[in-house]
Order: sequence, then structure tokens, then C-alpha cells
Amino acid sequence: MSNTFGKIFTLTTFGESHGKAVGGIIDGFPSGIEIDEEFVQRELDRRRPGQSSITTPRDESDRIEFLSGIYEGKSTGTPIAFLIWNKNQHSSDYQKMKDVFRPSHADYTYTAKYGIRDHRGGGRSSARETIARVAGGALAKLALKKLGITIQAYTSQAGSIVLNKDYSELDLSQTENNIVRCPDAETAEKMIELVKQIKAEGDTIGGVISCIIKGVPVGLGEPVFGKLHAQLASAMLSINAAKGFDYGMGFAGVSLKGSEANDVFIAEDGRIRTKTNYSGGIQGGISNGEDIYFRVAFKPVPTILQEQQTVNEKKENVELHAQGRHDPCVLPRAVPIVEAMAAMVLLDAYLLSK
Amino acid sequence: MSNTFGKIFTLTTFGESHGKAVGGIIDGFPSGIEIDEEFVQRELDRRRPGQSSITTPRDESDRIEFLSGIYEGKSTGTPIAFLIWNKNQHSSDYQKMKDVFRPSHADYTYTAKYGIRDHRGGGRSSARETIARVAGGALAKLALKKLGITIQAYTSQAGSIVLNKDYSELDLSQTENNIVRCPDAETAEKMIELVKQIKAEGDTIGGVISCIIKGVPVGLGEPVFGKLHAQLASAMLSINAAKGFDYGMGFAGVSLKGSEANDVFIAEDGRIRTKTNYSGGIQGGISNGEDIYFRVAFKPVPTILQEQQTVNEKKENVELHAQGRHDPCVLPRAVPIVEAMAAMVLLDAYLLSK
Amino acid sequence: MSNTFGKIFTLTTFGESHGKAVGGIIDGFPSGIEIDEEFVQRELDRRRPGQSSITTPRDESDRIEFLSGIYEGKSTGTPIAFLIWNKNQHSSDYQKMKDVFRPSHADYTYTAKYGIRDHRGGGRSSARETIARVAGGALAKLALKKLGITIQAYTSQAGSIVLNKDYSELDLSQTENNIVRCPDAETAEKMIELVKQIKAEGDTIGGVISCIIKGVPVGLGEPVFGKLHAQLASAMLSINAAKGFDYGMGFAGVSLKGSEANDVFIAEDGRIRTKTNYSGGIQGGISNGEDIYFRVAFKPVPTILQEQQTVNEKKENVELHAQGRHDPCVLPRAVPIVEAMAAMVLLDAYLLSK
Amino acid sequence: MSNTFGKIFTLTTFGESHGKAVGGIIDGFPSGIEIDEEFVQRELDRRRPGQSSITTPRDESDRIEFLSGIYEGKSTGTPIAFLIWNKNQHSSDYQKMKDVFRPSHADYTYTAKYGIRDHRGGGRSSARETIARVAGGALAKLALKKLGITIQAYTSQAGSIVLNKDYSELDLSQTENNIVRCPDAETAEKMIELVKQIKAEGDTIGGVISCIIKGVPVGLGEPVFGKLHAQLASAMLSINAAKGFDYGMGFAGVSLKGSEANDVFIAEDGRIRTKTNYSGGIQGGISNGEDIYFRVAFKPVPTILQEQQTVNEKKENVELHAQGRHDPCVLPRAVPIVEAMAAMVLLDAYLLSK
Repeated sequence: MSNTFGKIFTLTTFGESHGKAVGGIIDGFPSGIEIDEEFVQRELDRRRPGQSSITTPRDESDRIEFLSGIYEGKSTGTPIAFLIWNKNQHSSDYQKMKDVFRPSHADYTYTAKYGIRDHRGGGRSSARETIARVAGGALAKLALKKLGITIQAYTSQAGSIVLNKDYSELDLSQTENNIVRCPDAETAEKMIELVKQIKAEGDTIGGVISCIIKGVPVGLGEPVFGKLHAQLASAMLSINAAKGFDYGMGFAGVSLKGSEANDVFIAEDGRIRTKTNYSGGIQGGISNGEDIYFRVAFKPVPTILQEQQTVNEKKENVELHAQGRHDPCVLPRAVPIVEAMAAMVLLDAYLLSK
Repeated sequence: MSNTFGKIFTLTTFGESHGKAVGGIIDGFPSGIEIDEEFVQRELDRRRPGQSSITTPRDESDRIEFLSGIYEGKSTGTPIAFLIWNKNQHSSDYQKMKDVFRPSHADYTYTAKYGIRDHRGGGRSSARETIARVAGGALAKLALKKLGITIQAYTSQAGSIVLNKDYSELDLSQTENNIVRCPDAETAEKMIELVKQIKAEGDTIGGVISCIIKGVPVGLGEPVFGKLHAQLASAMLSINAAKGFDYGMGFAGVSLKGSEANDVFIAEDGRIRTKTNYSGGIQGGISNGEDIYFRVAFKPVPTILQEQQTVNEKKENVELHAQGRHDPCVLPRAVPIVEAMAAMVLLDAYLLSK
Repeated sequence: MSNTFGKIFTLTTFGESHGKAVGGIIDGFPSGIEIDEEFVQRELDRRRPGQSSITTPRDESDRIEFLSGIYEGKSTGTPIAFLIWNKNQHSSDYQKMKDVFRPSHADYTYTAKYGIRDHRGGGRSSARETIARVAGGALAKLALKKLGITIQAYTSQAGSIVLNKDYSELDLSQTENNIVRCPDAETAEKMIELVKQIKAEGDTIGGVISCIIKGVPVGLGEPVFGKLHAQLASAMLSINAAKGFDYGMGFAGVSLKGSEANDVFIAEDGRIRTKTNYSGGIQGGISNGEDIYFRVAFKPVPTILQEQQTVNEKKENVELHAQGRHDPCVLPRAVPIVEAMAAMVLLDAYLLSK
Repeated sequence: MSNTFGKIFTLTTFGESHGKAVGGIIDGFPSGIEIDEEFVQRELDRRRPGQSSITTPRDESDRIEFLSGIYEGKSTGTPIAFLIWNKNQHSSDYQKMKDVFRPSHADYTYTAKYGIRDHRGGGRSSARETIARVAGGALAKLALKKLGITIQAYTSQAGSIVLNKDYSELDLSQTENNIVRCPDAETAEKMIELVKQIKAEGDTIGGVISCIIKGVPVGLGEPVFGKLHAQLASAMLSINAAKGFDYGMGFAGVSLKGSEANDVFIAEDGRIRTKTNYSGGIQGGISNGEDIYFRVAFKPVPTILQEQQTVNEKKENVELHAQGRHDPCVLPRAVPIVEAMAAMVLLDAYLLSK
């Protein structure tokens, strides 16, 4: 069941990087929702490799094909299966790495756990698996849209370049206007510069993605183990290369005093609001109607185009000269993935709260 | 099901702060494990209020009582139910707050979600619920001990006082030697000073707990949504007041380059190891045999002994004068809770990996 | 998780026959439902041993005690824990059977599976575990009552005595008027006669319980693996001694022709109904608004007061002289258990269908 | 999640009768198992329409295509996705039934539940969905084979023709030798005669399938709600047209006395066996090592080629003249489906028991 996400709305994914196809089955999707297939495809395009000069030059067209659950353009409440055929696989790039454990990849742990692995392009541990997440998230977004819930993520740190502005000071509609997906043009410029330089070195960097969820009704999330932020944390940490998650005041807030960090309630237009939002829109694991915001930390991509020492399956020391086409920084392509996971968490929480 | 944690080893908890009892049922516990009830009680004592001058003076004896699943001192593989009777409840402390939504507590969201709440002491949203977690974790530790897996958490930041040492430089056996549960005596001293001062102000602070898991076999954790660190993240964020989680290099590592952060594999005594451990013992969601380490951020306790503005159920502006006995800083008492959740995640992952 | 029943409404049970207590935790119960504790107790009394001359003379008072989830008489949406203390245990009755595997009991399989068992009174495999089910079912009935759903079971066969009437010909309000729980007085008389005779022989018999669910809204049940009748089947077969389940026309209908067995749709008062109800109120796994009816087969109680051959843990042939107080026929006491399981299935299906 | 079956080994299915494809994703399949694709195809061929003169003449080639989870002929422990393209759909056959609720089909309940349905060929409620089950079961059989567990089902009743022999008197290797899948040639002949006659009348009949599982190790099945027979019951009742399930002595055994029906234990060759097997290989929900045997009742196929009265979506009375190609008796094609579901239950129970 570890390839299934969610409780009521569920996504079960399949597929290896160099297998025949990747895809998934969505179960529990509400019936009667219009499925805008072009929107789903556009979301996939945001994740697609080869979309800019700072992402991997692999050109994967990644056309989605729906197999079930949709009739006359609407969801029927039955499982929605979809797939994306794998093309343009250069499996031979990986032939000489067949028995080698690439540093900070999952090659070794998969081999240890399963006794066998599809080494080509990382197999199941490849980030290519996230295609199915983006598709699932796109459908979730279609359902959330009807509820007035919107989700917007952006790159708030790339390597050492930090966007030092609160989301409320940003125009999030600018996020898609640059290739690093940072809504602040000036910072984006610096980030792009940095990524290009890192790429030239054959190296990689990590970063942070911030995500804002607006329009959430009061009452989503389930105490005590199904707290909304616990579900978000699990969803985000399940993304390849993710190393950390915080929400609301997060790590930065630990040195605040209670008297500084408490969100005072106020009655506003007959509705209960909070004056500040250090809580990040969630209290006791349940949404309080304010914006939900959180951050996800991503490590640098482990595939670098520099020589590295490592071992092979025979426990021999070997040198690794990675080839293939890789991202110097996953952040831009991870933005839609973060949004997709958030969308699925929210829709699932909504369906459970009904 | 949101009050149930785990997949094979599961803990289902119950209980409100001022109800009759708190407790839980553990299912899926391996049979034949000797149940050291005194050890379980000691773990509860570590969480207990009133244990030191910097924790709440509530004196809750919190004696655990096992009801099933144990025969002649050993687990039988059937559900282990346990409870801790609530005593020493000053419900009247809360009478005047019956209709008031305390800032940054779950009063409002519970009321909004359920239309009803047991207001006394926070009801179900009270951290008193974590007693059952500590009990469940203590049992999990007994099972993990036989596998050679150990879990040690400690306070690494209290408010602005940060313990700036890597865990490898610390003697973790010193953690229990001071009331703030920081293994570095000097830093502990400063933390205690700070907490006392904050307490005198009627205020509170947050902090960070670090946790180290040693002796983990290779192969625990399930791709892709059940990654071991995703499970840890969910477990940690489900603890009251938790706001963030990172593991391995975490947030600090995002500005490293791949060439700096990669963990090179080496063969050592016929075993595959990594030279460094930026990965934090997990690669691709699966344990690689190295130490697992992570951090959890806690916000300042929202109950402060200062006057606060808020609203009541009628949406009227009211002033809140909190009373009752509260912690100025939850960190010391959260240390065993973090360990308990980690223990349950690990045991569950182990049982699933068999 | 095998001691947890349900998906949204869940019951997790614990307890051995001669342990301290039996009980459970209900999660997912709707908030704001008035908890009529006396009704719950009455349901337990229907299951109680010693209630008549043809049930076991063990007099277990079985008083339920609620520990959480109820505030000022109403459910709060948080877990409802309850327990029933075990009293009047004659564990010594079982001392000499400690190492003996009683025929057609679970002694051998538990020992084989877990390597250890609480032999006293069957331990966890005792039907005493069903107390928690009856309590859970009673709460479910309270929630279903508000929806207009009623559940009535009765003994339709005891040994060779068969009640050869359709439920529509019976006055189900008569079920509780006799000790065998058969709504037809004449048949009840014969059944009681038979059970008394069997009891005198130190023997036991099985039988069939029929159950009728009325007032079910259209749309409960989830295709394809969560079909409403599949859930009922699983629930019923999980009851001790159950050997079979059928619903609607069931086994008897297999020799009908499609033209005989099809339920023709008719429009009646603006509502779609079926002319006949061979389908048993469920089509394609989803309720169609007609009465749901099903049967459950129970084997004769395996504990007989006659000498039996068997083996012990050392694989030696031994003779078994069972003692203790036992039911010659479980049917009367199983009636409330069947109703309870049905109630939980229906409530869970309802909550999932919202 | 209702389209997902199992706990550790899981099958999630998708697809409508006249959609693009049907298929599924298997998760939790053990790694390193050789995937004999031809065996899987043969199992599908056993279920295939058009295979004999007494099944529907629809000729669906139903070639399975694997998409993931298999590398160099072996399972890798990652999800195994597969699909079967739908071909040869005569959707126009159903055009005039678009708004009509066919008696004893799921047309009405799906429409009521979802507000929308793919009416073509029954859409999701079509038995075409069982293709994915047979594929999943075939893979499960491959894993069970290594454990020495075998599963054999056969038609033991077709309409009024009953095979009155215990399975121990039958040569189950004869099952595939006739088109009705009854291992007794003489009875098979009668059944075939009956089905042909029923077909000529444009009518249908039901029947009973018996299933025998041999080689089951002691200890599979989980008390108390996950009893092995409860899981089998749920699995069997989830098959289209199934109306009943019993195992071991089943419904027939309710009139036996305990002294007649108890399975006396004996020690045989150092192993504990039972002298008789009324229990059907399961005691207390856990396998005891003896043969598991059970029966499944199937109603007559509701699609008959006779005129029927019914209503349409506007609640108007209409006459229905069913067309299309249909089975007069599903039993022969249901045999591999029963086996498939049993195989998945057993493998899942085995993986859980490790």
C-alpha cells in the first residue's frame, strides 16, 4: 500500500524511469466533475524536463492518456486510470552503472531491500514517478477549484539565494514568468545566474519551495494522528530529494515567546478570524480558515557530472563518471509537484470532513 | 481512523484532559516480548507534569494499568489495552473559559468542526493525549531493543539558546541529568536560566528537539509514499505544538552543492557504509544502516499567564486571563514523546519490512 | 489492524475471556449524538450469559463504563472508549486444560501462530470478545436511528428446527418474547424443547440467524471490493462460530431462472422501487432502498460436556473432559451480535457515502 | 479505496466495460518472483468470453500488457501495472438502453449514488472488471506456488443440477476437460444440457462454485476481524452476481450436534492434524493446515433475452428488450475468478503472517 496516497481520495502510482509507462489510478474522486484534460496536460508540462535552459535537456513529451472513470467529459465516481508512455529513454547511458551504487541515490537501499532493481535511470526511485503525482494533483485541483481552494507554490530559496519576502508581499501570478519559478523578478534573476554557474561546474544545488493555500474552509484535518499539517508533512517528505518541512512560523518561530506568537482571535464581519497567522492556518491539526503556508527543503540533486568514488554490488571501490541528462537544481520542476501533493492532501481532507 | 497510528503495529488512543481516563490499544505487537511494566512507567514519568521546577506543577501520578494482551509477563500477540486514570483535575479552572476560544489553541477549530467540545483543559486537543503515545512508544522500544535499535532525543534549542554541537560530539547519556534534557551541561544551564526567566514573565518559549536512531538495519521504509522519513515527519508533526521537521542535512543543507553533500559509499569490513551521513541514514525512503537523525520544531506553548484578547462562541470580544498550571516550555517533556513516536515508526517499518 | 473494524466509523476491540477487562475504542463516531447509556446496557444484557435457562449459567453482570468521547451526554466526535470489567472468572476450571487443544476451538491455531496463548476460557478467541461488538453496535444503532434505519435479527433455525416463513409474514416485535429469540411462538417452542434436550445430553447444536434491515437510503455501499453485502459477509463471518452467509435469494436462489429471479423496477409515488426483492436490497454492491435481508449460519458450540479425544502441546493423545459453563446453542445470544455487526457496517457505509 | 483489495498484497483495479481499457496495479508483490506471462494469459483465457458454445459469443482476445514492476522477467517489489485494451465493443447495442434501468443490474443504484453513469455494457459494474482480478490472482498463484499452496475451483451446481460428491471423491484435474468446469463428467454433461436448454429459452440460471485450497501452512489469518474465512467471504461476495458463501460444514452443518461436528485432534507423524475436517481448515480465523474448502452461490445472470418491464431515468414505465451477447450461466467463467480472489486472500494473509 506504500504506493497509494490518501484515504478517501487515493492515488496509486506505478512505473519506472525506463519502463514502458508511468501512471496511476485515482479512486474516490467525486463524480460529476468536468475533467479539463488540457489543464492536466499543462500541469504535466510544468513538471516536464527540457522546458528551459536550466532544467535537464531531456525532451519528454509526456502526453497523458486517460483510460477510465470519465464519461462524456465528466468524472463518474469510478477509478480514473491514466498513463504516460515512456519515450526517449537512453537506457544505455546507464548500462555501465548497472552494478554501481550512485552516492546519495537509492540504488543501494533498493538493492538491499528487494534483492533486485531496475537500474535504468534509477528505476522506481526516479523522480519520473512524480509525473503521476502531478496528474493526480491536477485532478484534485479541478475538484478544489469548485470549493474555492487555490494552491500556489514557488521557489523561495535556490542554493544560497534566499527570497526574503513574506508571501503577502509577493505577486504570485508572476511565478510562472521565469524559469526558476520565483515570483520576485530580481531574486529570480540571481537564482538563475547561480543555477547556470552551478550547471557549468557540473554540480547541483538544493533549495526551498514555499506553498500557499487559500480559501480553505474551517474544519479540515483530523485529530490526533491525521492532523492536516502532519498529512502535508508526510506528503511533502514523500517527494524525491525533500529533506524538511515546516509550516506557519515553523523553525523560525521557536525562539518567539508565546505572547509574541499567539494568534489573537477577532470577530470580523460575523466571522471568526485571527489577527496574525503564525499558526499557518491550522490549529490542533484542523484548518481555521486562514491561509495555510508551508516550506519544503530540497537537497541538491545527487547526480553530478563530476567524478565520484563509490562501490559496486561486489563491494569493490569504483569510480563513477555520471552521464545522462540531469537537472542542476530540481526546484523549478518541483514547484508543480509540491502543489500537486498539497492539492491531494486538501481534497482528501475535504472529502473526509464531509 | 485518525486516532490510530501505524499500519502493522498500530496504536489507537482515547481520552480527554479532564475525562475519566486516557489510554489506548496497541494492535500488531509481536508475541513473546517480555513486558517490563516498570520501564513503561518510567517512560511515562519522563513525560509527567510536575517532575521539575520548570515544568507544570500539576502532580499527575499517571500510573499505567494494562488490561489485556499480556499473559504471564509476555505479550501474546493480541491487543494490548492500557489506561491511565485522570486524577487531580481542576476542571473548575476552566469553567469561565467554557465559551472562550483561547488564542492559538484548538478550541475554535474543534468547535467549528464538531459543533461541540469538551472545553475542560483543552479536552481531546490537550497534550495529555500524548500519555498514550509514550506508553505505546515504550512498548515499541521493548521490541526494538531486541533488534538492537536505540532511540535518543534531546533538547537542542530552547528559545534562542541553541546547542551548537553535532550529536556525535555529545554524550547522550547525560541527557537525563538535567531538567531541560540537554546533554551539554553548559548549554543546559543557559536553557534552564532562560526558561525560569520566561516563566517569571508568565510567558512561554518554543524550541527544537533532536533525535538520533542507531542500530537500524538496512531496508526499513517503503517507497514511494511510505518513505521512512515521510512517516517520521507525519509522526512528529502529529505531536502537539510541533511546527517543523527535517532530517539529515535538512534545511541547512539546501545551500550545499551536490559535490559537497553527497555521501560517498565505501566498503568497510565487508559491509557497505557511507563516508559521511548527510542523508541522515535514509536514501530513497529506505534506511541504509547509518544513523538516522532528525529535528522537530516546537512553537511556544500558547497558554500564557498574561492577559490576552480573544472572542467567545457568540463572537464577542472578550479578555482572557488564563489560569491553571502550565509549562513555560514543553521541550523537556516532549523529549520522551518524540522518542516514543520514533519508536513506533521504526517498529512498524520493521514489521512491514519482514 | 485486524482488531479494528470499519473504515470511517471504526471499532477497535481488546480483551481476553479471563483478563482484567474487555472493551474497545470507537473512532469516527458522529458528534452531537445523544448517548443513551441505558440502551447500550440493555443491548449488552441481551448478549449476557445467564439470561435464561437455555444459556450458560455464568452470571456476568457486564456493566459498561465509558471513558471518553462523551460530554454532557453527547458524543463529541472524539474516540469513545469503553470497558467492561471481567468478573466471576473461574480460571481454575481451565487449569487442567492449559496444555490441551480443545477440538474445534482456536487453542491449537493460536498456539501455532503466536507461540503463546492465554488458555483461560479461550483467551482472546473467546466469544466474550463480542461484548465490545455489541457495545459498538449499540452506539451505531443510536446514530442509525436518527437516519430511520432499523435492524432486527432473529433465530430462524436451531439445529433441525427451521422457521419456514418469510420475514414479511412474521411479527418481529415478538422476537424478544421468548428465550430462543424466534419471533414465531410455535417454532420457538420447538426450538426451546430441542435445545433443552441437547443440553441434557451434554451436547450442542448450531443454527441460522436471519437479519432484516429496513429504512436504508439508496446509495450505501462502495463498488467494487467494498460492496455492501461483501462488507456484511465479512462482518458476519468474523463472529465466533459463523460458517456461512447469504443475502437476498442466497443459496436457495441459484436454481431459479433469471426470468424468475429478476426484480422488475416500478415507479411508485415518484420513487423507484422493485416489485419483488430477490436482490435483498442491494444491487451492484449498492443499496437500492428495499429491505436488506441476510442469513448467517452458526456451527454447534464446540465445547460439549462429553468426553473427547484430543492432543496436548507435547503432541500426546489425551482425553478431554470439558467443564465450565457453556451454551448448548449460541443462537439466542448471537442475535444481538449479528445486529451489532450489521449496525456498524451500515453506519460506516453511510458515513462513507456522504 | 473500495477499488483496492488486500492489505499487504494489494490490487487496485480500473476500467469500464466499454471504456478504453481495464487493468490494475498490484502493490506489495514479493520481489524476485519469476513472472510467467503466458500463465497469466492462460488464466485470462479461462475467464474469456467466447471460449465455448455455452458462454457469450463475444470474442474478446483480452491480451494482457504489463507496464511496470517486472525487470528481466522477475518482479522487483515495485508496483506491477497491467492493462487489457477493450476491443470489439458494440456500444451501440446499449444506446437505446441509455436511460433505462435494467432489472437486477446496478444501473439504478449507480445512477442514484453517482448522479452519472457510463451505461455502455454496465460500465464499471460490468463483470468485465473481473479481468483485473484474474490477472492479480494469476500473479498471486505464481507466488503461492513457491509456498506449495494450490487452489482449485469447480462448478458444483448449475441451476438445479447438483454435484453430490465430496471434493475428496473427485479428480479435480478433470475440471478443465469440459466447458462447464465440473470435474465429474456425468454431472457436467447434465449441466451442459441444462445450460443449452436455458440458453434456447433466452433465459439464465445460477449455480454454486466450490473451491479447495491445499497446502496452506498453519497460522494464516488474523483474529478477530481479519479472520481468514471472513476475508474469503468478503472476497467472494465482491464478485459480480455472488449471493452467498459458506466454508467447512457451512449451512449444511448447522443441524449437526457438537459431538458430531467437532474435529478431533490427532498427532500424526509428529504433526498435529484433525481426524475430520468439518472446520474447513480454519479455526478461530486461523488456518490449521488442513484443506480449506468453501462454496460460493451465484444468482442467475440478470440479462435475459426476454421482454421485461422496467423504468427509465424519468421514472416512466418502459419495456426492455435486452440485446447484446450474454452468458446463460456465469458459472464456468466464474471458476477462475473464484480461484483468483482466493489466491489473493491467501497471499495477502501469508505476507501478513510473516
